[in-house]
Amino acid sequence: VSLDLPDVKGREAILKVHAKKIRLKEGANLSTIARGTPGCSGADLEAIINEAAIIATMRSHEEVAMEDLEEARDKTMFGRQKRSRVMEDQERKITAYHEAGHAVVAELQRPATEPVHKVTIIPRGMSLGSTMSLPERDRYIVPRSYLTALLAVLFGGRASEEIFFKDISHGARDDIRKATEIARAMVTEYGMSDKMGPIAFSDSQEHLFLGREITRTSHHSEETARQIDSEIRRMISTAYEKAKDLITKNREKLKKIAEALLKYETVTGEEVARMLKGEEIDAIRANASAPTA
Amino acid sequence: VSLDLPDVKGREAILKVHAKKIRLKEGANLSTIARGTPGCSGADLEAIINEAAIIATMRSHEEVAMEDLEEARDKTMFGRQKRSRVMEDQERKITAYHEAGHAVVAELQRPATEPVHKVTIIPRGMSLGSTMSLPERDRYIVPRSYLTALLAVLFGGRASEEIFFKDISHGARDDIRKATEIARAMVTEYGMSDKMGPIAFSDSQEHLFLGREITRTSHHSEETARQIDSEIRRMISTAYEKAKDLITKNREKLKKIAEALLKYETVTGEEVARMLKGEEIDAIRANASAPTA
Amino acid sequence: VSLDLPDVKGREAILKVHAKKIRLKEGANLSTIARGTPGCSGADLEAIINEAAIIATMRSHEEVAMEDLEEARDKTMFGRQKRSRVMEDQERKITAYHEAGHAVVAELQRPATEPVHKVTIIPRGMSLGSTMSLPERDRYIVPRSYLTALLAVLFGGRASEEIFFKDISHGARDDIRKATEIARAMVTEYGMSDKMGPIAFSDSQEHLFLGREITRTSHHSEETARQIDSEIRRMISTAYEKAKDLITKNREKLKKIAEALLKYETVTGEEVARMLKGEEIDAIRANASAPTA
Amino acid sequence: VSLDLPDVKGREAILKVHAKKIRLKEGANLSTIARGTPGCSGADLEAIINEAAIIATMRSHEEVAMEDLEEARDKTMFGRQKRSRVMEDQERKITAYHEAGHAVVAELQRPATEPVHKVTIIPRGMSLGSTMSLPERDRYIVPRSYLTALLAVLFGGRASEEIFFKDISHGARDDIRKATEIARAMVTEYGMSDKMGPIAFSDSQEHLFLGREITRTSHHSEETARQIDSEIRRMISTAYEKAKDLITKNREKLKKIAEALLKYETVTGEEVARMLKGEEIDAIRANASAPTA
Amino acid sequence: VSLDLPDVKGREAILKVHAKKIRLKEGANLSTIARGTPGCSGADLEAIINEAAIIATMRSHEEVAMEDLEEARDKTMFGRQKRSRVMEDQERKITAYHEAGHAVVAELQRPATEPVHKVTIIPRGMSLGSTMSLPERDRYIVPRSYLTALLAVLFGGRASEEIFFKDISHGARDDIRKATEIARAMVTEYGMSDKMGPIAFSDSQEHLFLGREITRTSHHSEETARQIDSEIRRMISTAYEKAKDLITKNREKLKKIAEALLKYETVTGEEVARMLKGEEIDAIRANASAPTA
Amino acid sequence: VSLDLPDVKGREAILKVHAKKIRLKEGANLSTIARGTPGCSGADLEAIINEAAIIATMRSHEEVAMEDLEEARDKTMFGRQKRSRVMEDQERKITAYHEAGHAVVAELQRPATEPVHKVTIIPRGMSLGSTMSLPERDRYIVPRSYLTALLAVLFGGRASEEIFFKDISHGARDDIRKATEIARAMVTEYGMSDKMGPIAFSDSQEHLFLGREITRTSHHSEETARQIDSEIRRMISTAYEKAKDLITKNREKLKKIAEALLKYETVTGEEVARMLKGEEIDAIRANASAPTA
Repeated sequence: VSLDLPDVKGREAILKVHAKKIRLKEGANLSTIARGTPGCSGADLEAIINEAAIIATMRSHEEVAMEDLEEARDKTMFGRQKRSRVMEDQERKITAYHEAGHAVVAELQRPATEPVHKVTIIPRGMSLGSTMSLPERDRYIVPRSYLTALLAVLFGGRASEEIFFKDISHGARDDIRKATEIARAMVTEYGMSDKMGPIAFSDSQEHLFLGREITRTSHHSEETARQIDSEIRRMISTAYEKAKDLITKNREKLKKIAEALLKYETVTGEEVARMLKGEEIDAIRANASAPTA
Repeated sequence: VSLDLPDVKGREAILKVHAKKIRLKEGANLSTIARGTPGCSGADLEAIINEAAIIATMRSHEEVAMEDLEEARDKTMFGRQKRSRVMEDQERKITAYHEAGHAVVAELQRPATEPVHKVTIIPRGMSLGSTMSLPERDRYIVPRSYLTALLAVLFGGRASEEIFFKDISHGARDDIRKATEIARAMVTEYGMSDKMGPIAFSDSQEHLFLGREITRTSHHSEETARQIDSEIRRMISTAYEKAKDLITKNREKLKKIAEALLKYETVTGEEVARMLKGEEIDAIRANASAPTA
Repeated sequence: VSLDLPDVKGREAILKVHAKKIRLKEGANLSTIARGTPGCSGADLEAIINEAAIIATMRSHEEVAMEDLEEARDKTMFGRQKRSRVMEDQERKITAYHEAGHAVVAELQRPATEPVHKVTIIPRGMSLGSTMSLPERDRYIVPRSYLTALLAVLFGGRASEEIFFKDISHGARDDIRKATEIARAMVTEYGMSDKMGPIAFSDSQEHLFLGREITRTSHHSEETARQIDSEIRRMISTAYEKAKDLITKNREKLKKIAEALLKYETVTGEEVARMLKGEEIDAIRANASAPTA
Repeated sequence: VSLDLPDVKGREAILKVHAKKIRLKEGANLSTIARGTPGCSGADLEAIINEAAIIATMRSHEEVAMEDLEEARDKTMFGRQKRSRVMEDQERKITAYHEAGHAVVAELQRPATEPVHKVTIIPRGMSLGSTMSLPERDRYIVPRSYLTALLAVLFGGRASEEIFFKDISHGARDDIRKATEIARAMVTEYGMSDKMGPIAFSDSQEHLFLGREITRTSHHSEETARQIDSEIRRMISTAYEKAKDLITKNREKLKKIAEALLKYETVTGEEVARMLKGEEIDAIRANASAPTA
Repeated sequence: VSLDLPDVKGREAILKVHAKKIRLKEGANLSTIARGTPGCSGADLEAIINEAAIIATMRSHEEVAMEDLEEARDKTMFGRQKRSRVMEDQERKITAYHEAGHAVVAELQRPATEPVHKVTIIPRGMSLGSTMSLPERDRYIVPRSYLTALLAVLFGGRASEEIFFKDISHGARDDIRKATEIARAMVTEYGMSDKMGPIAFSDSQEHLFLGREITRTSHHSEETARQIDSEIRRMISTAYEKAKDLITKNREKLKKIAEALLKYETVTGEEVARMLKGEEIDAIRANASAPTA
Repeated sequence: VSLDLPDVKGREAILKVHAKKIRLKEGANLSTIARGTPGCSGADLEAIINEAAIIATMRSHEEVAMEDLEEARDKTMFGRQKRSRVMEDQERKITAYHEAGHAVVAELQRPATEPVHKVTIIPRGMSLGSTMSLPERDRYIVPRSYLTALLAVLFGGRASEEIFFKDISHGARDDIRKATEIARAMVTEYGMSDKMGPIAFSDSQEHLFLGREITRTSHHSEETARQIDSEIRRMISTAYEKAKDLITKNREKLKKIAEALLKYETVTGEEVARMLKGEEIDAIRANASAPTA
């Protein structure tokens, strides 16, 4: 059931095949799209090309431009934009600080983390905003250092809410679930807790195989269950403190990133990085659009 | 399965489409109805328009008035009125104090809570009375402060029964279940218990997907289960004390609201708010119907 | 699935519709039957009318009398009489004291309890005897005081066996199960245990909905389970002691009621009440049949 | 699903209907057979009459005699005789002492127990021997004193093996299971343990009803489970000691009953009772066949 | 579902019926085969006769000899011989000592155990070797003394490996499972643990009966579960020590039996018994083939 | 369902039958392939021959050479090579040290372990690299010493990552699961934990047999579960320390083997053995290709 998904070379080849149906504008780089679509199937990639053609038509582009491809990729991977959604100012503000929190904690832990591609508070699919990472390559080996950093990134949003609003919201629910699943896998499957050691503690497996259902349950003792719980909570707690610490130390810069989001709705990963080094968003954008500099 | 329900703009548009079939009286405001129907699907909204037309006909209205739309909305969302139901005086009295309790605790915690729309002891659907809130907008972010206040509102009915009758009834069963579910979600899904931290403790998930059943159970240790129980009980207990405290401090005013309900059956949220400031229901109503003032 | 059953007004209306097919004797009061059939569906009520017609025919009545309606109601709600059943004297005696125990504990707790309609040791359906209550009205609110009294009524039968025979039988099995279910609901659903507070502790729910089975289990900790058990046992124990206390204090009167049952097989609720005040069954019945008094 | 089985009057009537097809010898008493077949359905009773006719034919009886009816009843209720089975002397001896143990403990506890009908070491169905009780009437009320005595009867076989052979066998497996089920019901359903009180502790119920499966599980705490276990073991242990005590005190008499079984294969309940009073089996039988005495 | 299998008389009769189709050589004793096939169904017995005819043909026998019948019985009950299997010398050696261990522990506990029929290291079915017991008769009563001895026999193989090779193998897996099942039944079903007493502790039963599944689970307390575990382990441990003790005391003799197995592949139970008395295999066999002695 | 797979003789015979369809080059040794395919079915073996023919054709070989057969065997047993996969240098390096770790720990524990056939960092199927063992014969008896050594081999990869990179990756997930399953079987099925003794502790078995599902669960006590967990963790921990110890003592040699893998992608088991004795890979290969030496 876990099909063999194409790797980066395979994805580029598939994109090229489907791109023969459309006219690509100069600068449209299928290799970049291939890098930015790990985990996509051939059908997903065909859908991206088709979607890009539709978007280009709606934008009255004669040829499919790189921006059309990227919007098609985002839509396919994260859902349709929902610009029409009426959000209260306070909710927009919470969203901006939440996303800025993810982005700041991610950027400050480079290179252990994936680079931030862009941060946005334009609602898309089920989410009010999103911080998108664009992996530079397919990742076959996932080290403990990467997962540890990722846990802190996942808590960047909640930590930012807590620090700036003294209130927290249910919006971190998915981050919490994802972080718990990662921490659980680290402890019970990947052997990444020194205290528990390299043992598999997965509780139940179900295979449905030719109509046969095989359940294997290993009843852990209460003592083991307690130790597993304790290790997961230690990892989560460490990551959350890490996120709060990074945000507290970069409080003013995060504030500026959040304000930039409220002003421009979307900020690129590069802009986040430069703002963390002290630059101002308006200066960055002014320079970017300056003809020579 | 969780379909993408229309937001407030979408609802207003849908209501307008269906309203083309009927004649609306001046003052009938579809935008207000749209605001007051969060969570409704397109089919629900169509049903409201159709129901309003029927109600108007039964009331011999030439055109569909705002009051017809509101009754249609209430019937669709809360069930049909059951005026014929014979209730004993004591049961009517308990119901009035129960509903007044909800309303008072809700109003006194403004703006953390939704505004009270109206309180009534006219039986509708399965309930003997109801306190209806009408959210001013779609809510995308649910903060801890809102949920904490909501818990106290849910216990307002039971607390009022306890204070005024020294006996309690099974009528708070649904409030108790709802409050427990919210408190459980706060502790085990939303990471809103400082003691438990931002971890997901959901016990089991079952997806039925193309005939496949996948069950993932994370066996918590007894120690973790005990801490979760303890946190849920602490939240519930705090909320219940909050409700009792607010009611005790406003004992005489609540009594007047309950008496108003026994006299007039329905009291608006605005009237509740003014009675909490010391005004008398008869005075309010007299003024309201006074031509100039 | 929980259909909306007719209330007392609805039941009377339904009875009247079906009664058009039959001839009612003067004094046959459909309103009384309507009051005495809470929880009955329209189909149940139709069955009662049909049954009454059959009973009247078998009794060679020209018209359907009140007694035919009452027998039809009892048969529909409690099962067919089994007069043919051969019971040993000792078993008849145990049954009489058991039922008298229920009746005495019910009557002595008035008005917290429903009034006793009649007590009988004529076997009906699966039971050797029965104590029937006839609620005076539909009950929409169930207070803690009512449930507490009901628990003691349920234990009246067993307590009487224990006091008069020094032996107990398995005949209280259904009373025990019903009492345990009520006490469990009081503690885990209605929030009626002060120690546990207003929390829902229901362990599992199963809905079968369009072929989908959704199970939600909230794993309580052992500590919580122990407290719930302890509260249920405390409530049961208190109720059982209450029943024993009431019977011990009315030992001689209960004995006379049981003897009346052995002699006349059926005793009315009113007779039970009067015997508890010191009257003798033969005197009551003599007076009743006396022309003037 | 629990059909309403005929009571003793009903059984006699059913037997008479089916007996019209056959010729009954004088002395064949259908009323006795009706008393001795509690729990039998109409179909069972018809089978007994048919079987009796076949047995009579095989025995070349012109008419169906009482002995044919009794053998037919035994075969229908306990299974076909297996006289051909080759049993080792030691196994026959163990069986004789095992059955004698049941019979002695039953007889010595009269009238709390049902009277013994007969004891036999002729294999029948799955059992090597059997002690049959023939209730004198249908039992509608089961007192604690009866169940307590029954527990001791069930352990009479095992206790006898232990006392006479110093070894025990797996042959008491069914007695043990039955006794455990009775003790469990006494503690968890009938409220017959003073320590646990009148509470229902049944763990799970499954009803299969129109394709719907409803499971209700009440999770007891470990403390409650421990107390239940302890009470069941106390009841079992008391009953087993009772059985051993009765056998030890009647050791020589039991030995004579067992030897009578080894000699005659079947001994009647009356003979057991008389041997317990000191009579010898050969004397009893000699008297029985003596013409006048 | 547990069909009524034929007893020894029945088996002999069935064998005789099917043997009418073949020509039996003088000395072929169907009565011996009948004794040696307890638990076989009529179909099994027919298969043995047919198989014997085929074996006789393959061996160019004119008539079916006793040896053909025995090989047919072994093949039907234990699986086909696998002489072609290439086993390493070390594996053959381990197998020889393993089987010799079973045989020695069985023989030394006579008459509590069944007599050993033969021991072999010729692979058959799934096993590398086997020690076959041939019960002298159908066993209807299984005493504790027999089961206790059988536990030690089952551990004879593992104990021998441990003593002679200082290493143990997974080859005892089936012995361990079987021994655990027996010990568990002794403690939880047969009431053979004095500490637990005559109580049934079976955890779950599933009957599939006309499409209905009935599960009855009695939740034991943790304390009871711990005592059961402890009793099972005590029984297992005692049996294993018994096996080691018997082997240590007969170390040299077992070694000679194992060497005999490596030399001749199969040794009879009688030879095992005589070697345990000090005779040498070659002497036994020389005498056996000696014409007169 | 567990079919009887062919043993080494059977496999060679099956290979020869299918090889009749192809032309084998001199030196192609089917007997070696037969030895190297334990656990393969007849269908697997036919697939290997067919695959070898295709590989030979793609390589423009006139006849099927030994190298074609070996590649066909590897592909059938471990999956298709994925040379196209783009791996980062760091990931290639981690893979090389991981595989070298497995190989070194395996080779250093000879002869308790199977000999290493070859080590490779060419991705194949789902794995980034692999260390293949080629058993010299079918193994029918699995001693504790073998399993203990195998546990250390499984942890060789993770231990090497930890020692050389101070970071660990999720790449050991499958090793961890396999090691845990082996340790669990040793403790709970093979009786190889001296502390737990020869008892079967398997928790649940499910057989699906003619549509019947039989589940037998033996509820262990918490104490037993704790001891089992503790024994498994002790075994795992001992094995992991063993692996780290062997690698630490052969740190420089392992480094050279990993570097050889990075240079040549594949290293044979013999080369691993010689490098562990101090030889250099280039010298080994130079000598190997030297015409005379």
